[in-house]
Amino acid sequence: MLRVTLFSAVLAAASATRLESLRLRGGQQKEKVCIIGSGNWGSAIAKIVGRNVLDRDQFEDEVTMWVFQENVDGKNLTDIINNEHENVKYLPGVKFTDNVVADPDLTNAVQGATLLIFVLPHQFLGRICPQMTGMAKGCRAVSLIKGIEFENGGPVLISNLIKENMNGMDVSVLMGANVANEVAQDEFCESTVGFKSKANGEIFQKLFDCPTFRIGTINDVAGVELCGALKNIVALGAGFCDGLGLGGNTKAAIIRIGLKETAKFAKMFFSGVQDDTFMESCGLADLVTTCFGGRNRKCAEAFAKGEGTWDEIEAKLLNGQKLQGTITAKDVATVLKTKGKEAEFPLFMRIHEIAFEGKAVSSIIDL
Amino acid sequence: MLRVTLFSAVLAAASATRLESLRLRGGQQKEKVCIIGSGNWGSAIAKIVGRNVLDRDQFEDEVTMWVFQENVDGKNLTDIINNEHENVKYLPGVKFTDNVVADPDLTNAVQGATLLIFVLPHQFLGRICPQMTGMAKGCRAVSLIKGIEFENGGPVLISNLIKENMNGMDVSVLMGANVANEVAQDEFCESTVGFKSKANGEIFQKLFDCPTFRIGTINDVAGVELCGALKNIVALGAGFCDGLGLGGNTKAAIIRIGLKETAKFAKMFFSGVQDDTFMESCGLADLVTTCFGGRNRKCAEAFAKGEGTWDEIEAKLLNGQKLQGTITAKDVATVLKTKGKEAEFPLFMRIHEIAFEGKAVSSIIDL
Repeated sequence: MLRVTLFSAVLAAASATRLESLRLRGGQQKEKVCIIGSGNWGSAIAKIVGRNVLDRDQFEDEVTMWVFQENVDGKNLTDIINNEHENVKYLPGVKFTDNVVADPDLTNAVQGATLLIFVLPHQFLGRICPQMTGMAKGCRAVSLIKGIEFENGGPVLISNLIKENMNGMDVSVLMGANVANEVAQDEFCESTVGFKSKANGEIFQKLFDCPTFRIGTINDVAGVELCGALKNIVALGAGFCDGLGLGGNTKAAIIRIGLKETAKFAKMFFSGVQDDTFMESCGLADLVTTCFGGRNRKCAEAFAKGEGTWDEIEAKLLNGQKLQGTITAKDVATVLKTKGKEAEFPLFMRIHEIAFEGKAVSSIIDL
Repeated sequence: MLRVTLFSAVLAAASATRLESLRLRGGQQKEKVCIIGSGNWGSAIAKIVGRNVLDRDQFEDEVTMWVFQENVDGKNLTDIINNEHENVKYLPGVKFTDNVVADPDLTNAVQGATLLIFVLPHQFLGRICPQMTGMAKGCRAVSLIKGIEFENGGPVLISNLIKENMNGMDVSVLMGANVANEVAQDEFCESTVGFKSKANGEIFQKLFDCPTFRIGTINDVAGVELCGALKNIVALGAGFCDGLGLGGNTKAAIIRIGLKETAKFAKMFFSGVQDDTFMESCGLADLVTTCFGGRNRKCAEAFAKGEGTWDEIEAKLLNGQKLQGTITAKDVATVLKTKGKEAEFPLFMRIHEIAFEGKAVSSIIDL
């Protein structure tokens, strides 16, 4: 049930009063949330967070959402969101509580924020981070971005990119089996907050957790984030199995080996990675969901059936979007070769060979 | 490719020469295998084991299989198996190597055996174990039986039942994501041997392992065996989700919580249970397979859709067979209530309430 509050008075003077609203109330400074990004996943999260803050005393009621301005049927997307409380372009049919305020001006959107939610393609980080000024002192961030970069022969966490671009700000991550549309429809699911600072992990848990979106926490940013990044490689393997018409046994084996290699990869490059992480929602649950339902699986199935090159399959099935799994598979294979660690990652390497080196798809099971 | 050896001479005089064949050869006594049971899974395993022993020096070539005698189209099932090298009743279309010898006489079948493979409904154990005599000294067993018994408010492992009925014989277990027909078709999959004796675990690994059936080992009989027994409860929960039309997120969450409760249950009742066990094929891989493909899932989906009582659904969908998951769910709920541990197992308890106490199926997500 959507709880809608009478918040229009606050909204009207939002920018002017934002800093003022951060003043101590009863000795306790409230947390002020800003969501950076407004695609499908950002909008689903805006629905959850917008509703949660109204319920919980430690948060300001207003949640700002930075929206990359677009014209939709002759209107500004931000105006539509603020009038109709719905992102008609990226999450149509789902209403936000009206305390979620879209803002096309990044500097204005983050003004006074103490909690930043990064949920946008990570390619934009380098460009937008320098524009972000005016957050409150001690502002902390959480990254919902699933992806990974590679530099100097090793992986770079997106959370670390954010940290570097935000003057060393503490960055937690949120990853899990969270198909955006299902989260937005309040279907029951779980997610995992990986933290470096326990206090910050707990704040983000309170911000996101609700009966239909259960948040676990674990002191392992790298493990949680790498689960979200590497699952798409495994999903290619699962899709190859589907394309070959192999049974459930085989797919389950690929999923299991994939999770083991994900853990091994994470431990190889980052200290403090915990075994428990891979049993959390970000680990096995997200992997299972992705290997049965995701677009990497779907495109890999088409590839195994000989329906074209990756470019052709993407064009046909993804409406111009690009696959994450193929990019990550390439990067991971490059890093493993550089380190001479191919033999320890037979599944990751085999998926790369099938996807890019002409190896027979049927070799997915000859590990 | 099936490797068939010229073995008929040995077969002709099998019973007479069996003990003789155990004599030291080059100082090394060969292991002699007997399979106790010949259903769908027993027959699939007979195909794997029959082929493997021909390849590996430490095993006798002949593998006996105790078959409960049945009449099939006017012929003895054992005669059909020995002439056609195929169990036409329980695994039609799959050929054994001809060193697999069916025997309806249990005492004769186990004569001289050093390795026993138990793969039959565990209800028969009490009746057949006392008939088994004549194994070689130091004979060891492996149980492929998925199930669990309860006694005096706690679970009893089937491997322990076997041990008790077999004069304290060492008993390993084999569990994994192993749909019998797919294993028999040589589709790639994995399985896990849980052992108490490392040497015995390794012997069974050598006996079962082949390129399409990869065997991992772990020093944890109880953990491995409980994965195989409790997965069917979780599969009911997965089936409820499917029947309600819930999405992949929700089902992944149920699978994850189910694996966590399985681990907690195992640790509560047995010492030495290892976290790693739940990342092996017997753990997450078998659970995933069962929650997407098994009959417990299928029947629970029908139950959630209101298609009848359990008895009616079993009659309609299982051709008279009974579900394992509902029986186990009842037993586990009883044990948890006896111990006052209901609160620590919200998923197991909720599945029981839905299945047997009239709780709404939709409450599967209100944990």
